[in-house]
Amino acid sequence: MKRALCITTAFILVVLSTLHAQTNRILVQDMGELNEAIKDCKAGDNIILANGIWKDVEIIFYGNGTKERPITLTAEEKGKVTIEGVSNLKLGGSYLIVDGLHFKNGYTPTENVIQYKINNDSIANNCKVTQCVIEEFTQLDRDVSDHWIEFWGRNNELSHSYLAGKSNFGPTIMVRLEGNENIYNYHKIVNNHFGPRPRKGGPHGETIQLGSSGTSMTPSHTLVANNLFERCNGEIEIISSKSNFNEFRNNVFFESEGSLVLRHGNYATIDGNIFIGNDNSKFIGGIRVINTGHWITNNYFYKIKGTEFRSALAVMNGIPKSPLNRYNQVTDVVVAHNTYVNCNSPWQFSVGSNVSQSDVLPATEIRSARPERVVLANNVIYNKVADEYPIINYDEVDGVTFKNNIINNEYKSDVKPEGLITEDFTVVKKSDKLFVLDENKSDVYAGFDFGTISKDLFGNERTPDNNSIGAFVNPIKENLNLLDKTKYGTEWFSSEKKISTPRTFNVSSAKTLKNAIEKANSGDIISLAKGVYNVKSSLAITKNITIVSAQKNEKAEILFTSPKTAFELHPKGNLRLKDIDLTGNQSQNTFRTLDKNMSKAYNLFIENVGIKNFQSVLEVSQGSFADTVSVANSTFKNCDRGFMLNKETNDGGDYNAEFVTITNSTFDNIKETVLDYYRGGYDESTIGGNLTLKNNVFTNSGKAEKDQILIKNRGIVNVEFSNNTFKNNPVKLIAILWGEKGQEPGDNIIENSGKIEVVQNLKLKLMY
Amino acid sequence: MKRALCITTAFILVVLSTLHAQTNRILVQDMGELNEAIKDCKAGDNIILANGIWKDVEIIFYGNGTKERPITLTAEEKGKVTIEGVSNLKLGGSYLIVDGLHFKNGYTPTENVIQYKINNDSIANNCKVTQCVIEEFTQLDRDVSDHWIEFWGRNNELSHSYLAGKSNFGPTIMVRLEGNENIYNYHKIVNNHFGPRPRKGGPHGETIQLGSSGTSMTPSHTLVANNLFERCNGEIEIISSKSNFNEFRNNVFFESEGSLVLRHGNYATIDGNIFIGNDNSKFIGGIRVINTGHWITNNYFYKIKGTEFRSALAVMNGIPKSPLNRYNQVTDVVVAHNTYVNCNSPWQFSVGSNVSQSDVLPATEIRSARPERVVLANNVIYNKVADEYPIINYDEVDGVTFKNNIINNEYKSDVKPEGLITEDFTVVKKSDKLFVLDENKSDVYAGFDFGTISKDLFGNERTPDNNSIGAFVNPIKENLNLLDKTKYGTEWFSSEKKISTPRTFNVSSAKTLKNAIEKANSGDIISLAKGVYNVKSSLAITKNITIVSAQKNEKAEILFTSPKTAFELHPKGNLRLKDIDLTGNQSQNTFRTLDKNMSKAYNLFIENVGIKNFQSVLEVSQGSFADTVSVANSTFKNCDRGFMLNKETNDGGDYNAEFVTITNSTFDNIKETVLDYYRGGYDESTIGGNLTLKNNVFTNSGKAEKDQILIKNRGIVNVEFSNNTFKNNPVKLIAILWGEKGQEPGDNIIENSGKIEVVQNLKLKLMY
Repeated sequence: MKRALCITTAFILVVLSTLHAQTNRILVQDMGELNEAIKDCKAGDNIILANGIWKDVEIIFYGNGTKERPITLTAEEKGKVTIEGVSNLKLGGSYLIVDGLHFKNGYTPTENVIQYKINNDSIANNCKVTQCVIEEFTQLDRDVSDHWIEFWGRNNELSHSYLAGKSNFGPTIMVRLEGNENIYNYHKIVNNHFGPRPRKGGPHGETIQLGSSGTSMTPSHTLVANNLFERCNGEIEIISSKSNFNEFRNNVFFESEGSLVLRHGNYATIDGNIFIGNDNSKFIGGIRVINTGHWITNNYFYKIKGTEFRSALAVMNGIPKSPLNRYNQVTDVVVAHNTYVNCNSPWQFSVGSNVSQSDVLPATEIRSARPERVVLANNVIYNKVADEYPIINYDEVDGVTFKNNIINNEYKSDVKPEGLITEDFTVVKKSDKLFVLDENKSDVYAGFDFGTISKDLFGNERTPDNNSIGAFVNPIKENLNLLDKTKYGTEWFSSEKKISTPRTFNVSSAKTLKNAIEKANSGDIISLAKGVYNVKSSLAITKNITIVSAQKNEKAEILFTSPKTAFELHPKGNLRLKDIDLTGNQSQNTFRTLDKNMSKAYNLFIENVGIKNFQSVLEVSQGSFADTVSVANSTFKNCDRGFMLNKETNDGGDYNAEFVTITNSTFDNIKETVLDYYRGGYDESTIGGNLTLKNNVFTNSGKAEKDQILIKNRGIVNVEFSNNTFKNNPVKLIAILWGEKGQEPGDNIIENSGKIEVVQNLKLKLMY
Repeated sequence: MKRALCITTAFILVVLSTLHAQTNRILVQDMGELNEAIKDCKAGDNIILANGIWKDVEIIFYGNGTKERPITLTAEEKGKVTIEGVSNLKLGGSYLIVDGLHFKNGYTPTENVIQYKINNDSIANNCKVTQCVIEEFTQLDRDVSDHWIEFWGRNNELSHSYLAGKSNFGPTIMVRLEGNENIYNYHKIVNNHFGPRPRKGGPHGETIQLGSSGTSMTPSHTLVANNLFERCNGEIEIISSKSNFNEFRNNVFFESEGSLVLRHGNYATIDGNIFIGNDNSKFIGGIRVINTGHWITNNYFYKIKGTEFRSALAVMNGIPKSPLNRYNQVTDVVVAHNTYVNCNSPWQFSVGSNVSQSDVLPATEIRSARPERVVLANNVIYNKVADEYPIINYDEVDGVTFKNNIINNEYKSDVKPEGLITEDFTVVKKSDKLFVLDENKSDVYAGFDFGTISKDLFGNERTPDNNSIGAFVNPIKENLNLLDKTKYGTEWFSSEKKISTPRTFNVSSAKTLKNAIEKANSGDIISLAKGVYNVKSSLAITKNITIVSAQKNEKAEILFTSPKTAFELHPKGNLRLKDIDLTGNQSQNTFRTLDKNMSKAYNLFIENVGIKNFQSVLEVSQGSFADTVSVANSTFKNCDRGFMLNKETNDGGDYNAEFVTITNSTFDNIKETVLDYYRGGYDESTIGGNLTLKNNVFTNSGKAEKDQILIKNRGIVNVEFSNNTFKNNPVKLIAILWGEKGQEPGDNIIENSGKIEVVQNLKLKLMY
């Protein structure tokens, strides 16, 4: 037997090496040669792009390899071949491999960077993109939509790749299911590193979307496994599953501001995943459940502090007889053997219940159908500091059965099921962020088909003799690293950026100031000597720059005389102004974004700055997006308007800034509105906009404001509005707050100004 | 090898006979013994009901057999054990067989006659009901809903059984899918004979329903194969598939007034079925398609003359973003290798398009989403008499691809695709109703995944060398009998009724008339000698009775003096009056149904009858249903009201009579309405009510009618209204016709009466 095996092995090796020998290496130098090579390619060919920059190329890779002898498109040396400019890649045929390409410094001219289809008659099957990098290959305009990888066909794969920095509309990865050729696809999205996706400011910023509501009845069977999602903050859905029978296994979601959402489609498996949050963020979520028949097992949640839509487990209310694109009732879902460590209120039921909004929404929008036939069993909730409300319910919980779940503290939730038992148990730290029960709890509930939960998170067998409540069965290995980045992405590309020490440029004239801004590296500091700087043109901010007075108590003053904006904010511009005065001549704005092509977010930090005699303080363009606009201890005087973050008026849930914080500042004689921060349209699943307005003083402002509102925050969801003083502002309303979102004014002083109105339910425009 | 086989066979035989020997026969005489036997039963037990009538029994059959050694519940002698009265049967456990029971003369006290579940903790799996009969085991009140067989669990079977005569609300067979225990059920409904199901008059009269809209996302995988559906006329859906992955194979639908409807759910397979209509009926349908991903292959349609919803192939328009219980768009459907012989307009697209009704229906009811990515290929349409409109389209046909279909006549349809080719080909008759191409047409289109269509309707292989367009590949067997009833239903029960020659009773007095009605068998005739019959009580009609004057020209007159109704119509009452006069004393109705328990339909035929001095001519109760009310050459005079078929006012699409025909008759001095025939509510998929009103004369009527309408036909779909004369009827309206349903008055003479109004779109009440 042993001998037979040896002979067989030897034979296989011979065959393999013969096959390898037959591989035909074709090195191509330009598109002409590449197209020629593709035209002639046959099974076993290995087409190799010569080192260098391949600019403005649209590659159509068509061929038919075989399982044993695929056709490969690869790089002469990985890391030395980049696809740049206005470029893309389409695949059609079968058994093609794209290996080791690097897309950067550009964007696609079509709807996709890599598309597994050339046209309807030439779809890819059994094709693979592997060891590739797509890095900030993002459209110039945020509002232009595309996908970086679009799956069609069947049995295709994206593996061992690194994708990061998409900031425009559209999921990074999209699986399409229109047409029988594209169902039962069994695509694999495995072993990838999804690097940071910045906040987009509105919907359509998913990292992965599997199908759409229109194809949500299709069997997809896509596998998303062993990927790292690192700070994928594009929107509230990291992954949006919109088809049937998808599987999500052993992924790590690290500090990603969203959830794995079972948005449409049914019968998903979510097994063995790790969700890691932190102490600070309420945006980092877990799993949000809609629809039928999902199994959520063996997952580990650490410091998930998200609320409502972003809670560790958010089980939604559905709309009775829901329209195809809205919310089906949750039924027949199993949530078993999960472990929650130091989360806040991890279990939330009937999330999205909005019966109280019947006045402002049509009946077809009212989520009143509670979860039914849902089982929560064998889960562990452990809290170092007691969580008094591990369960939050937004409606009655009458369709959920709780069995053999344990928690280590007494709790006060409205819903206190017998099946969530307070027990005095302890956990041990196995590695950074990993805490497991110190001993197995073997009182495991055996629900219908629970025999299929045959392994734990790490793949250890669950046997009748050795089983446990929670995601883990002891013994587990020592020194496990939950965040071992070497397991994800390519073998050749590192996403770690070198951190350089910031330099300081000391300047004392307008000219040197300008030069310094141009010359500085991102992160550098420009220090101004005391004095007045007469600047005659705009200062363009294209990187991370801090401008500060050398002496805090001897503020430099920059005097702007050009009619153009004082500071021009570019994509990735990050301007921090500190201890300084800015004076205009009433003909320009203080800050202004580019009119278009604001492909990436900018930031603006203003601290102890005096600003006077401008038109608007900040004007932005439609597609622009500020991650943060932060103002502290500053004064604004004699301007026409304040911060105008109001140009994203597509009413599709988008907005111009994620965080707007104004504190301890004074606004005097601002003629129109002081702040206009707008989010239009209605979709409760795009939770957006964050405004903090505290300890400010507003005087003599709003006199020319035609709407008679001093501060506009229409549609912004999270608002803190307190301890401000309003004096002698001749407006009707200081602001309108949104009661349904918990907004209320706190301890403001109002004299001879309008009033602060609280409207419970805003009248909303439907966005779909 | 041969020897080894012999030994193995011998061994198996020994094992089998040993097993058989181990079977434990337990004969039980009453419920006490039966319950005891069930309580103690174990694998291999055979519980035998003693011959006789088992009355008012509720059997709870629980046990766990094994595949090899099931537990059986059977009859001492098949045909000699009947379950009667208020009885039912529930199964729980596994590997149970119910064999040879006969349910009749009764109804279930619960929602099901046979239920594959005792309760949620005791569901049946791998259980079988076989060789059983359920015959008119129907609720007393049509409006009380039940199912005869309700499936739960997995892998259950109904086979070789005969079911007929359900006339109340509710599908005969229902598959339930709520709960994970009941999905992926792979139930088998095979080799059954579904005998006539009478018209129900409204919805909820399906013969088989698989799931409901609320569970339409579930994977069911129910197999419905090799069944005969004989005149299953309960409603417009013979089978309503409302879950995913169901298969319908090799069934025969014989003169059944409805369709196999893919109502909800996706990915059904409809392969190898035979649909047989006739020359007369426009109600007999084929396949109606909604939703996604169905494959309709190898089916044979003969003389299907149904229109719109009931056309041989009705592909519907969907509602964009449809609510769960309405109409999803049709996408990704394949219709290939079907043969249509002597059908009328077999292919109808965008059926149900109702864009024109936007004024009377909400947007969520408007079916404007046309079929997309639908392929019709390799089909044959053969017509002995040319069909000028093989394709009818109710909207643009832009989402359907036609490939290699052939038809044997030129045609004028608006849509004339290149892929439906007029060719001069012939068919040969292989047996009654079976016509096939005289030779294979091998120009077969090879669409995506068409390789899976590997056999023809009769199971003959389709090979590259021997394939054909259409449902059949030659050569096919000779002398095939499409309607061989011995292949379906039980081995022991015959549904054939003996036809006895009707007898004639000659009577000449009221007393002998009454006696004769009581004594007569169904079908007999009572012949009245000339004279006046003074009848002092109601005449109950419980069977098929004809009452006729002996001499057509010497009409007998029956004089009714009791204040009770003249004729009392019972379930199954079939009264035919001919050449006779009926006279009341203004205190009673001529005809009246029972007030309740009208469990089965009645019929009323009136020919050359004079009716005068009654209150109403016909009064009915809510649950009552007339299949036919037919009036010809008769006169109605001095009555308060005419035919009052207006009590089914639940507005759920139900109505009190299927066919109402009044011709060549006169109505004089009817004080209120002459006819009130009502169908309430709106659901376009319940097509109901048929009124023919031709060549009648109406005079001096309607003077006390409070609504000022002489003839009320609210909601009745099919109306013919022509060549009538209206004189001196003091009403505002003679009738309101429904334009959208094609109703229009034809050549009526109107003098000094109201007018006939045509309303294009009735204001409709939504019924769900």
